[in-house]
Amino acid sequence: MRRRKTIKKIIPKMPSRYQKKKGKAPGTITYMGRRENLESVVNVLEYNEDEFNLHAPANIDEIVAHKAPPLVSWIDIVGLSDEVFIEKVGNRFGLNSLVMEDIVNTHQRPKIDEYEPHIFGVFKMLYINESGELIGEHVALVLLENAVLVFQELEDDVFKGVRDRVRRKVGRIRSRGSDYLFFALLDAIVDNYFAVLEYLNDKIEVLEESVYADPSPDVAQKIQELKKEVLRVRRWIYPVKELVSRLIDTDHPLIAKQTKIFLRDVLDHAVEVNESLQIYREMSMSLMEMYMSNMSNKMNEVMKVLTIMASIFIPLTFIAGIYGMNFDHMPELHWEYGYYVVWGVMLLLFVGMLVYFKRKGWI
Amino acid sequence: MRRRKTIKKIIPKMPSRYQKKKGKAPGTITYMGRRENLESVVNVLEYNEDEFNLHAPANIDEIVAHKAPPLVSWIDIVGLSDEVFIEKVGNRFGLNSLVMEDIVNTHQRPKIDEYEPHIFGVFKMLYINESGELIGEHVALVLLENAVLVFQELEDDVFKGVRDRVRRKVGRIRSRGSDYLFFALLDAIVDNYFAVLEYLNDKIEVLEESVYADPSPDVAQKIQELKKEVLRVRRWIYPVKELVSRLIDTDHPLIAKQTKIFLRDVLDHAVEVNESLQIYREMSMSLMEMYMSNMSNKMNEVMKVLTIMASIFIPLTFIAGIYGMNFDHMPELHWEYGYYVVWGVMLLLFVGMLVYFKRKGWI
Amino acid sequence: MRRRKTIKKIIPKMPSRYQKKKGKAPGTITYMGRRENLESVVNVLEYNEDEFNLHAPANIDEIVAHKAPPLVSWIDIVGLSDEVFIEKVGNRFGLNSLVMEDIVNTHQRPKIDEYEPHIFGVFKMLYINESGELIGEHVALVLLENAVLVFQELEDDVFKGVRDRVRRKVGRIRSRGSDYLFFALLDAIVDNYFAVLEYLNDKIEVLEESVYADPSPDVAQKIQELKKEVLRVRRWIYPVKELVSRLIDTDHPLIAKQTKIFLRDVLDHAVEVNESLQIYREMSMSLMEMYMSNMSNKMNEVMKVLTIMASIFIPLTFIAGIYGMNFDHMPELHWEYGYYVVWGVMLLLFVGMLVYFKRKGWI
Amino acid sequence: MRRRKTIKKIIPKMPSRYQKKKGKAPGTITYMGRRENLESVVNVLEYNEDEFNLHAPANIDEIVAHKAPPLVSWIDIVGLSDEVFIEKVGNRFGLNSLVMEDIVNTHQRPKIDEYEPHIFGVFKMLYINESGELIGEHVALVLLENAVLVFQELEDDVFKGVRDRVRRKVGRIRSRGSDYLFFALLDAIVDNYFAVLEYLNDKIEVLEESVYADPSPDVAQKIQELKKEVLRVRRWIYPVKELVSRLIDTDHPLIAKQTKIFLRDVLDHAVEVNESLQIYREMSMSLMEMYMSNMSNKMNEVMKVLTIMASIFIPLTFIAGIYGMNFDHMPELHWEYGYYVVWGVMLLLFVGMLVYFKRKGWI
Amino acid sequence: MRRRKTIKKIIPKMPSRYQKKKGKAPGTITYMGRRENLESVVNVLEYNEDEFNLHAPANIDEIVAHKAPPLVSWIDIVGLSDEVFIEKVGNRFGLNSLVMEDIVNTHQRPKIDEYEPHIFGVFKMLYINESGELIGEHVALVLLENAVLVFQELEDDVFKGVRDRVRRKVGRIRSRGSDYLFFALLDAIVDNYFAVLEYLNDKIEVLEESVYADPSPDVAQKIQELKKEVLRVRRWIYPVKELVSRLIDTDHPLIAKQTKIFLRDVLDHAVEVNESLQIYREMSMSLMEMYMSNMSNKMNEVMKVLTIMASIFIPLTFIAGIYGMNFDHMPELHWEYGYYVVWGVMLLLFVGMLVYFKRKGWI
Repeated sequence: MRRRKTIKKIIPKMPSRYQKKKGKAPGTITYMGRRENLESVVNVLEYNEDEFNLHAPANIDEIVAHKAPPLVSWIDIVGLSDEVFIEKVGNRFGLNSLVMEDIVNTHQRPKIDEYEPHIFGVFKMLYINESGELIGEHVALVLLENAVLVFQELEDDVFKGVRDRVRRKVGRIRSRGSDYLFFALLDAIVDNYFAVLEYLNDKIEVLEESVYADPSPDVAQKIQELKKEVLRVRRWIYPVKELVSRLIDTDHPLIAKQTKIFLRDVLDHAVEVNESLQIYREMSMSLMEMYMSNMSNKMNEVMKVLTIMASIFIPLTFIAGIYGMNFDHMPELHWEYGYYVVWGVMLLLFVGMLVYFKRKGWI
Repeated sequence: MRRRKTIKKIIPKMPSRYQKKKGKAPGTITYMGRRENLESVVNVLEYNEDEFNLHAPANIDEIVAHKAPPLVSWIDIVGLSDEVFIEKVGNRFGLNSLVMEDIVNTHQRPKIDEYEPHIFGVFKMLYINESGELIGEHVALVLLENAVLVFQELEDDVFKGVRDRVRRKVGRIRSRGSDYLFFALLDAIVDNYFAVLEYLNDKIEVLEESVYADPSPDVAQKIQELKKEVLRVRRWIYPVKELVSRLIDTDHPLIAKQTKIFLRDVLDHAVEVNESLQIYREMSMSLMEMYMSNMSNKMNEVMKVLTIMASIFIPLTFIAGIYGMNFDHMPELHWEYGYYVVWGVMLLLFVGMLVYFKRKGWI
Repeated sequence: MRRRKTIKKIIPKMPSRYQKKKGKAPGTITYMGRRENLESVVNVLEYNEDEFNLHAPANIDEIVAHKAPPLVSWIDIVGLSDEVFIEKVGNRFGLNSLVMEDIVNTHQRPKIDEYEPHIFGVFKMLYINESGELIGEHVALVLLENAVLVFQELEDDVFKGVRDRVRRKVGRIRSRGSDYLFFALLDAIVDNYFAVLEYLNDKIEVLEESVYADPSPDVAQKIQELKKEVLRVRRWIYPVKELVSRLIDTDHPLIAKQTKIFLRDVLDHAVEVNESLQIYREMSMSLMEMYMSNMSNKMNEVMKVLTIMASIFIPLTFIAGIYGMNFDHMPELHWEYGYYVVWGVMLLLFVGMLVYFKRKGWI
Repeated sequence: MRRRKTIKKIIPKMPSRYQKKKGKAPGTITYMGRRENLESVVNVLEYNEDEFNLHAPANIDEIVAHKAPPLVSWIDIVGLSDEVFIEKVGNRFGLNSLVMEDIVNTHQRPKIDEYEPHIFGVFKMLYINESGELIGEHVALVLLENAVLVFQELEDDVFKGVRDRVRRKVGRIRSRGSDYLFFALLDAIVDNYFAVLEYLNDKIEVLEESVYADPSPDVAQKIQELKKEVLRVRRWIYPVKELVSRLIDTDHPLIAKQTKIFLRDVLDHAVEVNESLQIYREMSMSLMEMYMSNMSNKMNEVMKVLTIMASIFIPLTFIAGIYGMNFDHMPELHWEYGYYVVWGVMLLLFVGMLVYFKRKGWI
Repeated sequence: MRRRKTIKKIIPKMPSRYQKKKGKAPGTITYMGRRENLESVVNVLEYNEDEFNLHAPANIDEIVAHKAPPLVSWIDIVGLSDEVFIEKVGNRFGLNSLVMEDIVNTHQRPKIDEYEPHIFGVFKMLYINESGELIGEHVALVLLENAVLVFQELEDDVFKGVRDRVRRKVGRIRSRGSDYLFFALLDAIVDNYFAVLEYLNDKIEVLEESVYADPSPDVAQKIQELKKEVLRVRRWIYPVKELVSRLIDTDHPLIAKQTKIFLRDVLDHAVEVNESLQIYREMSMSLMEMYMSNMSNKMNEVMKVLTIMASIFIPLTFIAGIYGMNFDHMPELHWEYGYYVVWGVMLLLFVGMLVYFKRKGWI
């Protein structure tokens, strides 16, 4: 029953979604994810060229207090199941109710929406967790004037590198505004897609090995699962390219012109990831083709053995059958060397057959 | 003959359509649906921030009377077979004859047309009825200045949630105009498409299980029917994305700017539904591929059994045949242990064959 | 040889075309159709709100005489093989030589060309004739200021409904100009495409039935022919959508603004027909897939029977062979119940085999 | 080894191209074709409404002399292997070195480039030569103010009709300028593509016949070769549509407005050819599918014969084997009618089997 | 294990990339290639109409010194593993840190980025090395006002022809600016793609030969590898067309108008390469199809032999079995010519069978 589980993972069960939202007004904030009843954890990281501090605010009012103009605030909210809390945070930062709905909607397709005072984005962070599984974690980013709000579903994320760079003042991140932080986070998400490509690539290589070595039905099933996994990942990654491209073309005041040069880099990566996914898709289709061709090859092998055995021994058995008949008058039976002659004939036939099959290239 | 029925459902029989319309002038109002000779039922729901009332007008003149400016009227007409009645209603609200033709044309492809004084849309409400069947019900929406006309074929609909929100004053619906009501109905239609996705997803999962467990021809047929069902649903859903997108770009005075933000949400959902349908299509193709691969695997199994049995016993039978011959001079027959020697040879051959097939991985 | 004929119908033999036109100057009027040497028949139908008359002019000069401004003239020319006559008619109405070339070129792809004083369109009227065959008849429409010229290849057409409406003053046709007549004719052509869809749909249903019931090679051939028929029809229908769409966007003075609303309806239908054709194409591909899967299923059946019979009886025959050997010393032969013991062993083997195959689900 | 040759023809061997051009400066005039070391032959045809003369200039200086303004000159250069000569001609008419490079580059993809004083086009003339082979001949056209230069590889061409029309003053060619001549040549090239369609159509019909009658491996190979031929032809024809379309939109002074109406006709034909090629491609794919289905049908036939024979006779042989055993105590052997009873049983089994297979529809 | 190696080559192992870049700031210069720890080698080639000299600067300061305005400098840096050195060079020429990152990122997808003072391009030089392998070498070009910087991974390159032309003053290269040099290098890269097409074409021809001659599973594997190779090459070549097209449309001051005419030529070639790759892709798919069809043909052959042998000899053996029975009363056994009669019957059956199979076309 292992397989069923895999399938469920691949296509997130819709009923919950449909039943949860059914009949609610648009803009109703309904958490769609799997980890229910957990408190949200907030971490605030403030920095500019000179200062840097990290603290966990005790309550929501404190969060707002940190939104001081000369500092850039990275406000990280982990855990999205407490809808009331999310709504409070959202209200404090003046987020639209539709934005808040999307923040907790873990089924939301990647998107970037521009509003007058902020830019809002939803993405999937894809990473391989410790048990080697591919995780697609919902993350929402809100770019404000001096802050970036990050709403994520689980504690794990792909932002460790960015945190380090802020902490250790590496690169230009400490000297730039919140738009650069927004870019850096987006860049981290997209860069991590390469890890997913590796993961898929490894899977393809293993399957390729199996297809050539031992094309069992199990392998066919794994190929189909790979195909579905590629489809699933593609669905999460594919829209990013278009979104970033539109962000580059925007004239929203929150995105500085020099940040757009960096966004072009993210776009490049997004394009590359999409191309690779496309190639993986074609490769998985080729795998199935190869599997079928190997199957039919094996069938050929089986048939050849049968044909050779049957073609050689059925005629010989017939000859033996002839001289097993009980007719009163069968002169050969009384020949002194009849038996040996028959053996000779049989041997000749046997060798003839072998030569024939050899010539056909079957043995 | 169960299958034939399914097919008919999937591709609505065209003859009726073609024959009904044949030779009539464009703009002739001809009901295309399946429920003939039924009276239309009208319900009017009027509301604003403070007031709310629901009543069924006794005749057409009453319907118009309710179109009072400060109130938003939701006029719901159920049953489209009485063409004369529909025409009267249409004339009262100044609808174009082409619009009226589309209202009763249950074969009409989804569309949104903008006219000077109103916006007209035709959609398919998709839902699963009580007997678990997928129903595609024709619905036409007309947005007027203070009213929305809803023409639907059957009593069932997907607007229960919207009605509740109006009744119980949930969300912003009571404080907005008729364009918001129009959006809310459209949103309800599109949101319900997710229920259809669930329905298709469940079907795919069940079929997937069957393909792995027991790839009977019946399963192949079900996969083909699923493919046609996805095609049918896609045809009804696919145009919606484009239509909503155009509605967002319109500058028609009836659509307020703040309503467009909500329409963007509907667009998001429409895009997502289309993507999922695309994935289901690819998955149903993979299912067929898997079915074929399992079939050919089973054939391989069958052939292996045949080959093993035949390859082992035909040579042995040949040997037995040899010593069943009646030659006068067959020295082996008179050996004291001849019989046992032959048994020994046969056993050796038998074991040799088993080892050979074992090595080939066939047993 | 029935099949060859079908093929010829599907792909109109090119040689005639190529050989007829080879080396002629562009603009040379060369009839391309199949009905040679027939006189053209002209019918003129004149009408306005009050008047209506229909007559067959005796010669070409009379045709022109009817082109009176207050009346709309529908001039119907049946039979295109008399190139000289067509040229004379064309010259009278000031048609370009390229237009006249297209009028008689029955291989012409659907097109609409706008010229200063007229709009010219070529289409295929598709209809099912009395013997149930699908006919694709070449028709050319020329919209002039107060007249529409209709050039058609055969007497049959799809305009009966339009004629009736003009005659019986149904709908708005009598009160509108020649552009509305042009639209009405175009509408009749496109509406009739739905009859072709029915025809194809019926064919698909019949083939589907056959594929499940009896997948003979004949069925495969019919599926392939269906695919070609869909291709052929698609080629004639597909361009119409684009053409009508461009006609809606034109600012040619002959097309009134209110007529464009009706053209939008034709566009809707054209889009729908194209979508259906696309679905039929996918369905015919699924049919072939289903056919292949049923074939391979039948092969499986055959192989199972063979394997079961051979696997059961070959070992039993071997045992019988053993005791048919003529060794002097075979103790079992002299046991009193040897024969019965052997029968017992055989029965055991037989039952064991049956159980084995039963467990494998083969019987 | 016949096949290998065909392949070579289909994909023109690249090495020559790559090796010939390797390291040369762009604009170097290098002949790429197959007919080396041949002198170019020049023919000049001059005409206007009243005059007409044709002569072969003795040297290059004479060619220029004919470029008299009131006459249109059609300068035909056959044979492109003499690069020095081509360069001289080019220089005389002020052609760019890149243009001259393309004139002799027989691998050049179809293109039309507009330069200040001339328009330059490269195409493939496709025609069936006397031995029934499809020839793709490189041709370059240069439109000058009062002349058209035609550079062609071989003596054969598709311009006979145009030459006749000029000579015999048919149509409007004698009264128009060089742009009309350019159009007429282009038209002749594209019109001849229909001959290629015929050629492909005939091939498809023959193959279709073979697939149904005798699906030998040879047929499969021919289908694959057809597919490659369609690909090759498509590559030469496909770009023409786009090129002509751009030529229609150009505002280059050399193309008069009334000539563009004629170019629209060429465009129509190019579109039609492309559509037909697309259909041929799909038909060749269907052919392969049909081939595979027929193959698997034949396999089914073979398997049925085997199964019927084996299923009937193996059990009967078993029964015979039973009574061939040599047990001392086999009561049946001593029954007076034992032998006949066994025959009866065998006959019953035989008939039973036949009935069983008949019911299965196998015989 | 030879195969595994091939696979690795085809899809460059991602881990290195992902692990190397993980967590680094954007703009960090990290070499991604395979040749670590090698010193970079610099060669400077300076020229104008009159002068020409080539020297290897001793240190970085010297490189800058040569950037004299009246001369065009071609600065060639071979070896990209020394990131510090690359950064120094980059800084000297005022390159952006993102540019420098791309210079050493050997996984970078082809791209052309325009910056205020320079144009930057990354490409793959594809060539066949001495051992016949296809090499994809990373190369970065930077166009400055009087210089072109070339950063390449390995010593081998495709620029020998350009170097020769500069040295030997062939063509216009010595009289033009750095933009012409940039074009010439780009042209050399794209021209060399034709060599790759040849390489692929040869592979396809060899495989085609094998598929027809001996469709072993090995061939199927090689076809799949070819398909992957085409995919890989396509990924490197495909974007070039779009990039050059955008370069032609640019209004960057570094690209002179007359150079754009030459770029159009490069574009032509890029388009042609892409089309050929597309054709190769379709051809490799056809190869697989052909392989499958040949496989199934061979299976047919095998089955026919089996069926013929079994169908002939099983009935004959049955007859022999009949007369091997030991019934007391079997009159035929005592007929004088019984034995010969049986032989006769057997011969008749044998011949009958042969005729039957002959008629079926199986022998």
